[in-house]
Amino acid sequence: MPVKLSAPLASALLPVKGVELGFAQAHVRKPNRKDVLVIKLVENSRVAGVFTQNRFCAAPVILCKEFLSQKAGIRALLVNTGCANAGTGEDGLNRAKQSCHALAELLNIQPNQVLPFSTGVILEPLPVDKVIAGLPAAIENLKADNWLNAAESIMTTDIVAKGTSRQIQLGGKTVTVTGISKGSGMIHPNMATMLGYVATDAVISQPALEAMIRYAVNKSFNCITVDGDTSTNDSLILVATNQAGHAEITENSPDFITLRDALTDVAIELAQAIVRDGEGATKFMTVTVEGGKNEEECRKVAYAIAHSPLIKTAFFASDPNLGRILAAIGYAGIDDLDVNTLQLYLGDVLVAEKGGRASSYVEAQGAAIMKEPDILVRVVLNRGAHAATVWTCDFSYDYVKINADYRS
Amino acid sequence: MPVKLSAPLASALLPVKGVELGFAQAHVRKPNRKDVLVIKLVENSRVAGVFTQNRFCAAPVILCKEFLSQKAGIRALLVNTGCANAGTGEDGLNRAKQSCHALAELLNIQPNQVLPFSTGVILEPLPVDKVIAGLPAAIENLKADNWLNAAESIMTTDIVAKGTSRQIQLGGKTVTVTGISKGSGMIHPNMATMLGYVATDAVISQPALEAMIRYAVNKSFNCITVDGDTSTNDSLILVATNQAGHAEITENSPDFITLRDALTDVAIELAQAIVRDGEGATKFMTVTVEGGKNEEECRKVAYAIAHSPLIKTAFFASDPNLGRILAAIGYAGIDDLDVNTLQLYLGDVLVAEKGGRASSYVEAQGAAIMKEPDILVRVVLNRGAHAATVWTCDFSYDYVKINADYRS
Repeated sequence: MPVKLSAPLASALLPVKGVELGFAQAHVRKPNRKDVLVIKLVENSRVAGVFTQNRFCAAPVILCKEFLSQKAGIRALLVNTGCANAGTGEDGLNRAKQSCHALAELLNIQPNQVLPFSTGVILEPLPVDKVIAGLPAAIENLKADNWLNAAESIMTTDIVAKGTSRQIQLGGKTVTVTGISKGSGMIHPNMATMLGYVATDAVISQPALEAMIRYAVNKSFNCITVDGDTSTNDSLILVATNQAGHAEITENSPDFITLRDALTDVAIELAQAIVRDGEGATKFMTVTVEGGKNEEECRKVAYAIAHSPLIKTAFFASDPNLGRILAAIGYAGIDDLDVNTLQLYLGDVLVAEKGGRASSYVEAQGAAIMKEPDILVRVVLNRGAHAATVWTCDFSYDYVKINADYRS
Repeated sequence: MPVKLSAPLASALLPVKGVELGFAQAHVRKPNRKDVLVIKLVENSRVAGVFTQNRFCAAPVILCKEFLSQKAGIRALLVNTGCANAGTGEDGLNRAKQSCHALAELLNIQPNQVLPFSTGVILEPLPVDKVIAGLPAAIENLKADNWLNAAESIMTTDIVAKGTSRQIQLGGKTVTVTGISKGSGMIHPNMATMLGYVATDAVISQPALEAMIRYAVNKSFNCITVDGDTSTNDSLILVATNQAGHAEITENSPDFITLRDALTDVAIELAQAIVRDGEGATKFMTVTVEGGKNEEECRKVAYAIAHSPLIKTAFFASDPNLGRILAAIGYAGIDDLDVNTLQLYLGDVLVAEKGGRASSYVEAQGAAIMKEPDILVRVVLNRGAHAATVWTCDFSYDYVKINADYRS
């Protein structure tokens, strides 16, 4: 079950001026579930995207990059679950294009104004006819307050729908930021089998929008891992509809940081929600590594800990078998690491220092912390001033069950 | 259960002239199990070792390196299970030294002629008094034909004792190579929670011995992974007792390759046995990547596949969800990889080419192969002439169970 995470109330996901959302049950893979989503954007919206770095990136990812570079003015996003349309070669590209054509025709826009997204099983052909057959119903129910339905429409192995909103004041106007995300397996930095859509009615220049999405992703989706697998389909889209009526925000505006931080806040909540709903998760771990010579080496250590199946199973068992964490620090790849000068903390408790167990440490302290649903693992390297944080979850029987059964 | 692996017969592990082995039940951690091993070597034996690259290497690993560099002539190996003596700082070093002193006194040799080894739980103090109390019994039963008992004495979560022998002819003399190994979790290249001891009565120069161990390790123990965790204690020791009576083998001898290949053959069998007995393993996978620009990139792809929990759980389920393999190839880190020119085979069956599923592939073929206990995953990159092979196992409920319960 998700770790301290429940679905948002429909009323908590605030409409964003210029955005309408509609869904359909198109039976892409399974009956009786929302599996097609259309997000319609008002004219002159600005859109930025960050995509998977997997070389086997899915057909829709290739098209998204192509269409964004053509700057035709994106007017719609089209998402299907049930099939990732990845590992599908030329045929996959053609099917993704067909879906864009079909939606463009219905909305009276150009095909390259539609960004396509798919998530689900890899290496199987997209049943594009089913997706297209679902479009009229999705268009029929386009509404501004459909964000919760939208969040539900993009779920795959997710147990809980993920979404959140913020409101801030910019130039005397109330500006809304609302986002949804999906993903619970194949989650790794440089994105994941994760889709995220964040929209704001703020008025913002394209360069400022691009700068904000890069900043937000580095602080959020690029700091999470469930299983270390980087998916073929990860996509995060940031939309600004320019409807809020304040002066345009550029990279030099005083309001730039206010908006950037609100977007980042939404992105972090959406990213953490993915980990809290990680496949089979029973614990949510924050791994913070401080005192490194640079951020890169802090991330190496944090990810070595966050990826270790031995550590993740020990957390599942609430077993303070913390030597496994020392081992991970040791193999993280810092060649000149002095293990005698670092400290390991579990929550506030000093566990190890001087190359071994801290003399003050008693196992009952570790055992008490390991029983909590939210756990902080903190490593102080004492060799510099840099830090990094990664969020992850434990590794349970259910992880194996979910992934052994996923296609069945 | 181990995948097509059973313990060797005692008679199949051939004595090596100049090597005697003795064991004790010392109750280091648990009662009624062989947990202390002494291997006594005849004078003028030559010894070479390869050790973990983990920065948190265990106290005995530090001492092994120190004693080998002192070239005092190693006369005994001392192994305990139940406690890794890792993450134990200065106190751990002292305890390891005490055990060497105690054995040296009993055998009438110097402490730096004893190499110590520990395996078990990290971050706990070595109960060195128990180890020392077990030494007289171990010395009491020193015997040349005790290899199976020795293999059993070094087991931790291993289900099956691991050992094998070869005999070859060198300069008209019969030369024996016998080895034992342990390890089934925390298994990763650059060694693992694995201990291996290979002995031969061959007459061989120290430089040739060093060259052989490096060659053998790169072809064997550095090609296996169970969970991607590199342990603090990994050690492989190669002993030549120089008792076989043939002319000394140097790096330029014609017989060098004959002996090297026999040692490598033993090392490969011992390494594969560790994977076949991998924690919770139900499948043994050989991942071969061919046609790379260099061996390094082939290893990257092979390890990306071998480490992916998503792939390993799919193999556990016998589910040919092979898109997950494409995803792993894609995120392995070859930046200029062209996914349209590579091929993926499962056994002899072409699964994917041209960026997608092969037109000849039908899922029944994949499903049939996935049911086998031994499975070959073969990737042909078509961009060079290099290759690499990695052996791994699947990821089952029992992996989680074993590692969630290991200390209980």
